[in-house]
Amino acid sequence: MAWEILGFAAAVLTMFGFLPQVIKIYRTKSVKDISLLAILQFTLGIFLWLVYGFHLKNPVIILANSVTLLILIAALVLFFKYNTKVNK
Amino acid sequence: MAWEILGFAAAVLTMFGFLPQVIKIYRTKSVKDISLLAILQFTLGIFLWLVYGFHLKNPVIILANSVTLLILIAALVLFFKYNTKVNK
Repeated sequence: MAWEILGFAAAVLTMFGFLPQVIKIYRTKSVKDISLLAILQFTLGIFLWLVYGFHLKNPVIILANSVTLLILIAALVLFFKYNTKVNK
Repeated sequence: MAWEILGFAAAVLTMFGFLPQVIKIYRTKSVKDISLLAILQFTLGIFLWLVYGFHLKNPVIILANSVTLLILIAALVLFFKYNTKVNK
């Protein structure tokens, strides 16, 4: 049971891993040091995880990656809102 | 077989998701807009995934999270090297 709690904690921490970054961008309105490529790579990767989760009909994979995908989309929207020049 | 390739692509993209960010920090020597809390949250989460992977004796979980953990440690080292003030 303790192992399931550890696995659950791991899942929740990584699932919401981008949330502090999104909050920071929202507050500072600055994205100069953020790698757009990293966000795009994560967004594509998490989207593929989500598709794979639907294929496996695994509700945990579907739920976790849906949440992460929403947070990443928020990060992308804020990035393009506050980006003043082309970042790599 | 195509689904396994899709799952593999998802795993590789997210496993190396922080690499572009680490490369960007290394090049620009600037971390002002990076959320330290996000990196710490991911590092703890991925570490717990790694421990959980050893518990499950699952080589895929162990390998993927070992790689990600190394990239996150590189991000932390660079963050503290180039951080000029306390970031949240």
